[in-house]
Amino acid sequence: MLVYGRNVALEMLQNPKKVQKVLLQEGFTDKKILSLLENSKIPVSVKPKREIDRLAEGVHQGIILYVRDYQYCSLSNLLQDNPSFFVILDHIEDPHNFGAIIRTCEAAGVDGIIIPKDRQVGVNATVMKTSVGTLDHMKICQVTNLGSTIDYLKEQGFWIVGTALEDSVDYRNIDYSGKIALIIGNEGSGISKLVRKKCDFIAKIPMYGTTNSLNASVASGIMIYEVIRNRK
Amino acid sequence: MLVYGRNVALEMLQNPKKVQKVLLQEGFTDKKILSLLENSKIPVSVKPKREIDRLAEGVHQGIILYVRDYQYCSLSNLLQDNPSFFVILDHIEDPHNFGAIIRTCEAAGVDGIIIPKDRQVGVNATVMKTSVGTLDHMKICQVTNLGSTIDYLKEQGFWIVGTALEDSVDYRNIDYSGKIALIIGNEGSGISKLVRKKCDFIAKIPMYGTTNSLNASVASGIMIYEVIRNRK
Repeated sequence: MLVYGRNVALEMLQNPKKVQKVLLQEGFTDKKILSLLENSKIPVSVKPKREIDRLAEGVHQGIILYVRDYQYCSLSNLLQDNPSFFVILDHIEDPHNFGAIIRTCEAAGVDGIIIPKDRQVGVNATVMKTSVGTLDHMKICQVTNLGSTIDYLKEQGFWIVGTALEDSVDYRNIDYSGKIALIIGNEGSGISKLVRKKCDFIAKIPMYGTTNSLNASVASGIMIYEVIRNRK
Repeated sequence: MLVYGRNVALEMLQNPKKVQKVLLQEGFTDKKILSLLENSKIPVSVKPKREIDRLAEGVHQGIILYVRDYQYCSLSNLLQDNPSFFVILDHIEDPHNFGAIIRTCEAAGVDGIIIPKDRQVGVNATVMKTSVGTLDHMKICQVTNLGSTIDYLKEQGFWIVGTALEDSVDYRNIDYSGKIALIIGNEGSGISKLVRKKCDFIAKIPMYGTTNSLNASVASGIMIYEVIRNRK
């Protein structure tokens, strides 16, 4: 995966094993980055600006890093070590939201995140950046079929909790003491119909203004901390 | 204020009174936008691409809107109608965070947001976009001196609650039943020293992983819903 920009470079170079090689624009002068590169064993090439421009799709500030792709884990791996709290993303599209949700899950001690392969942002450079170093400590599993995965989790004793406004109960009045898989819906359309049917509980975060939804990562944070409220 | 791009245009044109004029690039063809413009009284000019490129600082997709600047309210206005819950932003820099916080405040029924004039993102086009229509329903007050504003709020009977990890109490163990001003710290450095000294309570959201902080808008969401937990 290609990532670029000085801030991302500084972050990535904290863990140089993940960086495969680096391209610098002719005349690149950031002393901190150059010193980090010197002290690492990462291969570095210097290239003319036009070549860097061609490879980067955004503002590169003269540096491109080739970073190892994130390694997803399998569902069976996720189910090892007696997990009791998963977060399932039902087609989250915004990488900033995905990154912030990973960060919250890691902070709250969630055992793993499950995402569908299609119509869902994967772990890309923006997700890496916005999850600020927590990605390495979070198991993420990509599944082909969210519906059958949920069925399987139910067989394993998980209670499925979705969030929506209609036909729902106040999120403060649900018993989260068992094994919980919390589903976070898409930014625009919420939880998909098929997935909703499989939920044991539909939780509602009460709202008192004109809007009927919160930002997906904010809603996730409130729900995740509610689940662990009486556990930890 | 200049905003651009088709999505923002579609959103802004829901409330055409706020749009002063529109520039379209020659050959602009988005039927939905053109029909909205036709049904409004907004002056529209068609310009060559190079002129649109020159005015817009980002991806404009052929449309630029001149939008009325957001009107901040005064502190005295904010204090009318017996408010009991303010959110104070202590130098939030990321417009996505600011927008998401406005959205959460509006949803939770917060009475107003107070921001400092310096080193704090103001209400710009990105904030407008990420607060998805809630901005019109939220009072925001810009103050020159956060410290003296907090002193004044204390005189008015407000309890000042900050968030930090050190010398703090679990956020679930604070009595939020009085008038509360909740302070949200900067994304990188948290609450400033001076402001921290003025806090009556320092709340901590417990974390169980490797990270020691949450995204600012996520932390705000958890804290805001904790304050209203036993009120509404």
